[in-house]
Amino acid sequence: MEQPQEPRETAGEQGKRPLRVGMVGYAFMGAAHSQGWRTAGRVFDLPLTPVLAAICGRDPDAVRAAADRHGWASAETDWRALIARDDIDLVDICTPGDSHAEIALAALAAGKHVLCEKPLANTVGEAEEMARAAEQAAARGQLAMVGFNYRRVPATSFARRLVADGRLGTLRHVRVTYLQDWLVDPQFPLTWRLRKELAGSGSLGDLGAHIVDLAQYLAGERIAGVSALMETFVRERPLPGGATSGLSAGGASGAGATGAVTVDDAALFTGRFASGALASFEATRFATGRKNALRIELNGERGSLWFDLERLNELWFHDGTLPDSEAGFRRILVTEPDHPYLDAWWPPGHGLGYEHTFVHQARDLVHAIAELRPPEPSFADGLQVQRVLAAVEESAEKNAVYTPVTD
Amino acid sequence: MEQPQEPRETAGEQGKRPLRVGMVGYAFMGAAHSQGWRTAGRVFDLPLTPVLAAICGRDPDAVRAAADRHGWASAETDWRALIARDDIDLVDICTPGDSHAEIALAALAAGKHVLCEKPLANTVGEAEEMARAAEQAAARGQLAMVGFNYRRVPATSFARRLVADGRLGTLRHVRVTYLQDWLVDPQFPLTWRLRKELAGSGSLGDLGAHIVDLAQYLAGERIAGVSALMETFVRERPLPGGATSGLSAGGASGAGATGAVTVDDAALFTGRFASGALASFEATRFATGRKNALRIELNGERGSLWFDLERLNELWFHDGTLPDSEAGFRRILVTEPDHPYLDAWWPPGHGLGYEHTFVHQARDLVHAIAELRPPEPSFADGLQVQRVLAAVEESAEKNAVYTPVTD
Amino acid sequence: MEQPQEPRETAGEQGKRPLRVGMVGYAFMGAAHSQGWRTAGRVFDLPLTPVLAAICGRDPDAVRAAADRHGWASAETDWRALIARDDIDLVDICTPGDSHAEIALAALAAGKHVLCEKPLANTVGEAEEMARAAEQAAARGQLAMVGFNYRRVPATSFARRLVADGRLGTLRHVRVTYLQDWLVDPQFPLTWRLRKELAGSGSLGDLGAHIVDLAQYLAGERIAGVSALMETFVRERPLPGGATSGLSAGGASGAGATGAVTVDDAALFTGRFASGALASFEATRFATGRKNALRIELNGERGSLWFDLERLNELWFHDGTLPDSEAGFRRILVTEPDHPYLDAWWPPGHGLGYEHTFVHQARDLVHAIAELRPPEPSFADGLQVQRVLAAVEESAEKNAVYTPVTD
Amino acid sequence: MEQPQEPRETAGEQGKRPLRVGMVGYAFMGAAHSQGWRTAGRVFDLPLTPVLAAICGRDPDAVRAAADRHGWASAETDWRALIARDDIDLVDICTPGDSHAEIALAALAAGKHVLCEKPLANTVGEAEEMARAAEQAAARGQLAMVGFNYRRVPATSFARRLVADGRLGTLRHVRVTYLQDWLVDPQFPLTWRLRKELAGSGSLGDLGAHIVDLAQYLAGERIAGVSALMETFVRERPLPGGATSGLSAGGASGAGATGAVTVDDAALFTGRFASGALASFEATRFATGRKNALRIELNGERGSLWFDLERLNELWFHDGTLPDSEAGFRRILVTEPDHPYLDAWWPPGHGLGYEHTFVHQARDLVHAIAELRPPEPSFADGLQVQRVLAAVEESAEKNAVYTPVTD
Repeated sequence: MEQPQEPRETAGEQGKRPLRVGMVGYAFMGAAHSQGWRTAGRVFDLPLTPVLAAICGRDPDAVRAAADRHGWASAETDWRALIARDDIDLVDICTPGDSHAEIALAALAAGKHVLCEKPLANTVGEAEEMARAAEQAAARGQLAMVGFNYRRVPATSFARRLVADGRLGTLRHVRVTYLQDWLVDPQFPLTWRLRKELAGSGSLGDLGAHIVDLAQYLAGERIAGVSALMETFVRERPLPGGATSGLSAGGASGAGATGAVTVDDAALFTGRFASGALASFEATRFATGRKNALRIELNGERGSLWFDLERLNELWFHDGTLPDSEAGFRRILVTEPDHPYLDAWWPPGHGLGYEHTFVHQARDLVHAIAELRPPEPSFADGLQVQRVLAAVEESAEKNAVYTPVTD
Repeated sequence: MEQPQEPRETAGEQGKRPLRVGMVGYAFMGAAHSQGWRTAGRVFDLPLTPVLAAICGRDPDAVRAAADRHGWASAETDWRALIARDDIDLVDICTPGDSHAEIALAALAAGKHVLCEKPLANTVGEAEEMARAAEQAAARGQLAMVGFNYRRVPATSFARRLVADGRLGTLRHVRVTYLQDWLVDPQFPLTWRLRKELAGSGSLGDLGAHIVDLAQYLAGERIAGVSALMETFVRERPLPGGATSGLSAGGASGAGATGAVTVDDAALFTGRFASGALASFEATRFATGRKNALRIELNGERGSLWFDLERLNELWFHDGTLPDSEAGFRRILVTEPDHPYLDAWWPPGHGLGYEHTFVHQARDLVHAIAELRPPEPSFADGLQVQRVLAAVEESAEKNAVYTPVTD
Repeated sequence: MEQPQEPRETAGEQGKRPLRVGMVGYAFMGAAHSQGWRTAGRVFDLPLTPVLAAICGRDPDAVRAAADRHGWASAETDWRALIARDDIDLVDICTPGDSHAEIALAALAAGKHVLCEKPLANTVGEAEEMARAAEQAAARGQLAMVGFNYRRVPATSFARRLVADGRLGTLRHVRVTYLQDWLVDPQFPLTWRLRKELAGSGSLGDLGAHIVDLAQYLAGERIAGVSALMETFVRERPLPGGATSGLSAGGASGAGATGAVTVDDAALFTGRFASGALASFEATRFATGRKNALRIELNGERGSLWFDLERLNELWFHDGTLPDSEAGFRRILVTEPDHPYLDAWWPPGHGLGYEHTFVHQARDLVHAIAELRPPEPSFADGLQVQRVLAAVEESAEKNAVYTPVTD
Repeated sequence: MEQPQEPRETAGEQGKRPLRVGMVGYAFMGAAHSQGWRTAGRVFDLPLTPVLAAICGRDPDAVRAAADRHGWASAETDWRALIARDDIDLVDICTPGDSHAEIALAALAAGKHVLCEKPLANTVGEAEEMARAAEQAAARGQLAMVGFNYRRVPATSFARRLVADGRLGTLRHVRVTYLQDWLVDPQFPLTWRLRKELAGSGSLGDLGAHIVDLAQYLAGERIAGVSALMETFVRERPLPGGATSGLSAGGASGAGATGAVTVDDAALFTGRFASGALASFEATRFATGRKNALRIELNGERGSLWFDLERLNELWFHDGTLPDSEAGFRRILVTEPDHPYLDAWWPPGHGLGYEHTFVHQARDLVHAIAELRPPEPSFADGLQVQRVLAAVEESAEKNAVYTPVTD
């Protein structure tokens, strides 16, 4: 729609190549990713300089305002036009799940690197196609990453390091919840996140995808099978009066019109990891008083870990090799210089927040691109999470019977 | 002012009838029940005076020592002899589950009141017989109660009051864990609790029974069906060198002999309550660092509650009817005079401990007997818990398929 | 197997000498001490058997009722008569501070062992006389102990062990608060605790004495000097309608009569330990929402400790010798068999309560008497605490000037 | 040193005037302020557009690198040159305290707005001069603000709102600590923060200034007098090998040379507020295991508040007007849209971090400048904090005697 301008955000530091980002979508995730791209090169010493080149959305005025607000150099209203531009190196997909596959496939075909928000796709079929395309693109030097940003909380990264170092020993239990409460009020309107055709699923894809990925990442192994219950507590909700995007979707329409909720409000599942460890998962938007309670605990023969996203600067570690009288869960403030990502931030005890996960995501992706390393989590990882979610849905449909996750 | 008299600790206070207790078993639960019977009348103003009349166990020296230690007036080595005594009003059964049914049925037949430790029995069949016998005995004025002592933590009693008052509104979620870690070491010996013929089941009957009862008690409704995974992580353990009773069962035998663990180490199950609320349960002895982590959370449309047995003087309540900016889980120190049981104890903030649940259990049972009220939880309640546990086992055997709880 | 005998709760176990206790006072502390004496021999294997021989109070009916309730074999209305009895070995003083000196001196003179509630006395002069008498009595084989029961929380005992083992290194900071809130309401009546002639002082003697003793006990060294502010926020209160004892002193009189509060509501003081460590103390009854918040933290060059009486089964330990990335305050559940006092109680994670400090106090005193070891804390220790409190009062009177504690 | 370029960071949004910032200093505070200026206009809808126009420092290479890193359009090596530039609207002073007065006075004289890091100055005399100059500049439409950023944590801002609304009632107690531990190791080098000629004081000015300001801000009243102890535990430290700026000042020099620590390691003081409320303060860099533990509690007749900077998204509120059985400290996650600053950030439960206080500071200052409102905290507020610190030092020198704060 408009002529590309010179990037105004970051002119780039001398001698560094730019990484020109084009982002599709500008709601909650778009704002968060903007913050990530804008900040990463200001805090970390990056091999490439991220440039906020173009933002894309369907509403011309809204996308223009978003470009101004978030510091993008240009705006587009058609994602195909964005992808067609020569001055874009990476396409960052922040749209609802129903368009992930189409955009990602086109971007990869056009020779772009791709960052795609989670869940990778709304169906396993789409995800398979995307993973295949990513594998082929990798041979051409293009990278494709999926945005499971919670791997990039310093506390979870450090937790992974402890597990990889064998500090937990043989894993016995993983228990994870992701609890929110923004649907408790039956008058909350029917936003896009409650419509299957757009969101694919409800709590399962939104929250469940996060905890499946995080659990497998921390455990260092995959879920072999699941048994699931899913539920939609409130099956009819008011239609939204205005815009349907975002969590804070505004008031319902005055007309009193309602529509059917076509996704799950809550999903509970148990499972087994490949090693035989048992796992318990719960994703819900009906846990009154729990705002963002992604909580994960791992119990191994030698130790345990516990993390709560509502206190994301802390990791609790129980070292079971200490004498019984001295052992206990210890609260590690993950703000020391030798913790992941922390050498670039503030002195110990000066904590980070939610959005920093996107700064770290940008940092890691820039490094991967510059160093031609396969990014983590890859589209293949995203596909595998999708397969776990599909097994959950299948089990829930089949009366909770234990359902293996397909390879 | 007055002449010293003979010490008359349990002789009863003027004008009060005694309630003469005969207890079978003197291990962990025996010690706890002793403390309950000995203390209840010293703290609460009871309508009958509990008398620690007789304790019973198979080993003459050990039971004699236990009588001396715990303050029982006499000792028996045959529970049939105990039941035959005229001077026993109530039989308190603290043995492993395999003998509950036989002793309880005989005691009821002999006209005694009965308090039976949980789980009520090792099989649903036994439990049904016990519930039937209890119902018949009730017509004769005999009471039968099952020892789900965690209903009698002041914080859980108060939680029940809040739920009953409608403070949570429509229930959406219940999540409960009971996590311990005393089996993590594969060299921990094969005590009676790990043998199916004595214990009936493992974590499920020991820990799972508690959380099923507590969840139903707090919710005020019953579990309709379950889907379950069960696991035995360590299938072979050293035979114990000496006594096989108790949690701290001492070292393994020198001979290196081992035996098969025939019960579950861990049981995970999800379920639905009658109202449609979703529930998640986990009982395990393999959660490294978790010593007695019975944790329960209830989320309703109007509010939420959270409790952790490791901090049993606290109840966390989220009042969802407050403005969003002021709402939050609040830590109620359940030590105020108007909290359950607390008018008889210490000033606010001077907390109670685990054993007080047994004092409260004794208090409540004495009142029920004196006032001829049906005790809670009844044998029928114990039977219903048993049916939930049976559904869990059935589901686990049937590949986790959702299994209704029979009536 | 054997014939029922007469109940013999406190008759003593075969071959053990009794320790016959006579207790003066039967309010809050009397109830707590009764629980301690009644339970100690039932849980611990003691060298002497405590016998609840006689309880003493001025009101004949009330003391008779207290004897019945708490299980004392006889009742007295004159403490001199109690002391005169040949069948009393130990006098346990649970009265307000104004009578401690007189009773303790008489009891020591009569050849009794003495346990005296804290604070030892209302003045340094009285305390000096008591310490002298105790020293002389010690030569005759009599023991005198002061009731700083918070040394006997397993967590504080274990904390002392860690400090003594050098785990904190050179001490830098001690900060302690004892926060309660029962005086916030200006209509709370003028009980004995608010009258200088009975209580000696307010928060200072009641709460401050506890934290001064505990801080010095844990630090293993003495406070050298203090600087203090004291305040009485509400200077006039309704006269109590009825009984003036106890924390829950009932409603005010209907007449609207008021009286002057003659003690401090709050005392804040800073100080220096002998080693140069800095300390901060706060004792108040006006900390809304804090019920029994005795909190103490010690920071040393090698580590730190933190304890909160409202969660008394926990000790938080920071081991500063661990790598920075792994260090953190760890929550030790002080319920393991190798923790102080715990081998006699319940399995790990099954917590104790406030009253157990009195059971442990009884246990330790019985051992000291049987083994003729000097008890801790001694009357000399109680005197030294009194001197710290006197320095606090002197500093507060002298515009907070730093005031050395006299030897 | 170099020609001003076009600002490259933020070209400004159409129709908005720019606010061109020149910042002096580029260490820890410089990085934090950069983040604040760079982000404020991207998240909040501001009346002026902050432009990172120039950064200033003495080392040409280092300041050039800082400009590139943090996104400043130009670099200067002489703060006088910076101030002389016409294209600078606001001077942001992030240097050590010894240069605050000179730079601020010159900047105000040159017609600039000023933001000055805390503490306002190293002496009361300097601070008085600055406050006078700020008052005169205000008449000319220039604003001067001091950087007490902890007022701008959403949780503390919300706490202030609750206090202002009377939710605490008559204030009784304020207790505040600011605990860090980076000096525990005696080998930590002698950085500028440990030298009186540069830093003015140690813990007192660095940490104590923060908690004095925050306590007065939250209480809504001033400290009337103080009694203080100060201490330097380690009086000699290795000279730093290289750069002396920053908290992480690198290793000591190889030569083994040492120098004298001329500031306090710890400062403890008690005090009285104007209303008679008692206060307790502790600032230290020797609290092993405490990294950034700014903790403040306020107790009033109707309620209490508690905040801990290490968990800065939480505010704990005790509403004392609730029934005793339901009252308790509640954890308010201060992440709701109607909490201060939060309408511009993420959905509930997605927490902020330390640096966001600087974003909020920039936001508030931009609004104040655009709307010509006096900024808070003003230089007069900074002066008053300085007077409290001076009273603390005076009291510490005079044997802790209670010392009034001068007006």
